[in-house]
Amino acid sequence: MGQQTLRVGIAGLGTVGGGLVKMLQKRPDFAPAGGVVEIVGVCARSKAARNFDISRYRWFDDPVALAGDPDIDVFVELMGGSDGPAKAAVEKALSSGKHVVTANKALLAVHGAALAALAEANDVSLLFEAAVMGGTPAIKLVREAMVADEIRSVAGILNGTCNYILTEMEALLDQGGQAPKDAFGAVLAEAQRIGYAEADPTTDVGGFDAAHKITILAALAFNCAPNFEAAEIEGIDQVELLDIKLARDLGYRIRLVASATRSDSGVSVRVHPSLAPLGHPLAETKGGLNALFIEGKTIGRIFIQGAGAGEGPTAAAVAADLADLMTGARRPVFQAPAATLTPFSAVDAAHTMTRAYLRMLVKDQPGVIAAVSETLAEANVSIDSFLQKPVQDAGGVPIVLTTHATPESVLLDAVRRIEALPVVLERPKMLRIAQI
Amino acid sequence: MGQQTLRVGIAGLGTVGGGLVKMLQKRPDFAPAGGVVEIVGVCARSKAARNFDISRYRWFDDPVALAGDPDIDVFVELMGGSDGPAKAAVEKALSSGKHVVTANKALLAVHGAALAALAEANDVSLLFEAAVMGGTPAIKLVREAMVADEIRSVAGILNGTCNYILTEMEALLDQGGQAPKDAFGAVLAEAQRIGYAEADPTTDVGGFDAAHKITILAALAFNCAPNFEAAEIEGIDQVELLDIKLARDLGYRIRLVASATRSDSGVSVRVHPSLAPLGHPLAETKGGLNALFIEGKTIGRIFIQGAGAGEGPTAAAVAADLADLMTGARRPVFQAPAATLTPFSAVDAAHTMTRAYLRMLVKDQPGVIAAVSETLAEANVSIDSFLQKPVQDAGGVPIVLTTHATPESVLLDAVRRIEALPVVLERPKMLRIAQI
Repeated sequence: MGQQTLRVGIAGLGTVGGGLVKMLQKRPDFAPAGGVVEIVGVCARSKAARNFDISRYRWFDDPVALAGDPDIDVFVELMGGSDGPAKAAVEKALSSGKHVVTANKALLAVHGAALAALAEANDVSLLFEAAVMGGTPAIKLVREAMVADEIRSVAGILNGTCNYILTEMEALLDQGGQAPKDAFGAVLAEAQRIGYAEADPTTDVGGFDAAHKITILAALAFNCAPNFEAAEIEGIDQVELLDIKLARDLGYRIRLVASATRSDSGVSVRVHPSLAPLGHPLAETKGGLNALFIEGKTIGRIFIQGAGAGEGPTAAAVAADLADLMTGARRPVFQAPAATLTPFSAVDAAHTMTRAYLRMLVKDQPGVIAAVSETLAEANVSIDSFLQKPVQDAGGVPIVLTTHATPESVLLDAVRRIEALPVVLERPKMLRIAQI
Repeated sequence: MGQQTLRVGIAGLGTVGGGLVKMLQKRPDFAPAGGVVEIVGVCARSKAARNFDISRYRWFDDPVALAGDPDIDVFVELMGGSDGPAKAAVEKALSSGKHVVTANKALLAVHGAALAALAEANDVSLLFEAAVMGGTPAIKLVREAMVADEIRSVAGILNGTCNYILTEMEALLDQGGQAPKDAFGAVLAEAQRIGYAEADPTTDVGGFDAAHKITILAALAFNCAPNFEAAEIEGIDQVELLDIKLARDLGYRIRLVASATRSDSGVSVRVHPSLAPLGHPLAETKGGLNALFIEGKTIGRIFIQGAGAGEGPTAAAVAADLADLMTGARRPVFQAPAATLTPFSAVDAAHTMTRAYLRMLVKDQPGVIAAVSETLAEANVSIDSFLQKPVQDAGGVPIVLTTHATPESVLLDAVRRIEALPVVLERPKMLRIAQI
């Protein structure tokens, strides 16, 4: 625990990188063990002026050159992207015997196993607390607090942009006046305007960012290679204001829920817009917050909630990794020797039991409900609750129901059968009910 | 990260010690770094038969002898008690150059600074994840996740026995029939019968256990010496069913809230039965669960909830500390070199701003409410809400009110003035409203 200096190179000077530089300028001695973090070099797309001074650091146009520079001990990768320069630079750093700290969830979700092997071969650490839930220590929790337990599932809200959009869409319901026809589009545009959503929002609203994160948590929780290909991904771009309203009438809120569950038959990793009951911690996680349940065989359920993004919190997570390095702690990247990391066997979603919300638009005529309920009974789907709303316009009557737990394949078959009914005007919308 | 064996001696074979032995017998190789934990010796008050086999370990009658035994690397202290054999054994272990893992909150709250100095002088670790919130990693969170942040407050529910009793008391309200006259006593007796409360419940229901825990968290959060003497402690033994009912009528639940807050004028460490609004995560923390808010200047608020006690979860927390040792991580015990650890300067509670719940029993006659409100106005206390319940019996009418934020000294003065009114039949009961 003596004085030591950790010499870092930082690639990427956007929100998180900038936050880190500012934090380290103010408190280079933040680590309690008594050492100091010294920024040696920086690298970014442009050398343009910033609201912090980088003139005292060596400038690199090429992140790979920074990653391999003999003067650094740790390469901090805050560029993003699963491939391209981020991957090349991280590989260079690891193979040059430097520790890597990164916030890059896409890189880890897609290439995690290979990078873990490279880190192990070079006897260095690869840390990524900032990749999941920003300043909220999801990685540390799954990796260290549950280390003596057998984790059964990790599930929660891992994308703040989606949660912000869903929260704002619900707020439209309470504002009175006419809600915009395309509520999702309107809220997204406003989120982009204030910087809560990217210009290209696909990674967030398409569910891919949450899927990267749950893939990493699944690897840590189940000691396996990250297996992004096996994730089932649905975003929030098809969530309509009508669904948010009907869900609330039934006592639920819609949240983008990412989950990884281990059972005897394998692992299921999924991202879906899902209904969480009002009062449930996921339903009560609002705005840009993130939340996670971790369930262990022995410890039971731990719930953690906090900021999922933002300059300060995410930079603090990167700094926590640097502090960890300074304690001398060494751990296998994904909790097991790299040679033993194999992708988990994915459970067939068809066999997954799910409670569903089904919303359909039907003709306003007698016998409709009977037709729908008979069809569901024939498909072997049991109804839990049923709600018919007054006619909204001449286009049809929305009816919505929730089911008891049913295999997904049966539910999808039921949806097809309902869609085929002459009284049903469009393909029923199915949302899952979170079982957390 | 090669193969290593950590040789441990375990003193105390009660719930947690027994859980740990069973866990290590099943999975001695649980640590992901690849090492093995080997139990060398054990020690307990009695050698009586247990539901696990200890015949293969060396038996010690004296924990100090086990602590100093040359064959162990780590002394695991699970005996409890702030002084006596636990203290002597931990001191012996540290001064013999052995790491110590303990679940003993009383020991750390009272003697933490001296033990930290001893650990540092002998270049060994002193770890205590299991001392606070059992299997829920409160220590790790405050110590490691917030390491780059400036923590402003830690506050939550840290005693599962009290939370169980308060939850069960509230359940009495919903059961119909006549609630027992002494609801607290009845629920406590039942809790003792099923093993949720100790035969001598003072440490738990008197608030001392929660105070030990918040003292430790305050030391970690604010990098100071644990200062148990400075904690203001009130237990739940004076909480009446009537208060639980009236609080609920006003939209609150009563919880034993422990908090440590840093301000410019110093640190305030307190344990009080407090009102949390229905829907608030503390109000929704039920039964034996624990919950904690940590607020950092940069990261904002992190909330964590989980099991606060129990054989499995607490043993898993001890094992997590053993796993941490095996990573080679070394940290100052309370986040700062022992020589710099000084007790924080305690804030004068008189200046603390508090919102209060005041419940009084008054004569059933005109002018009573006017008299009470005038007295409060004279004392400079501003009323937020007011509730008068129908007469319960001939003994008087209960009235209850909540105040806006007021200095505690002003509130206590107001309580004295109200008590002196001829229409008031007994000393008003004051509870604080949690401001978390």
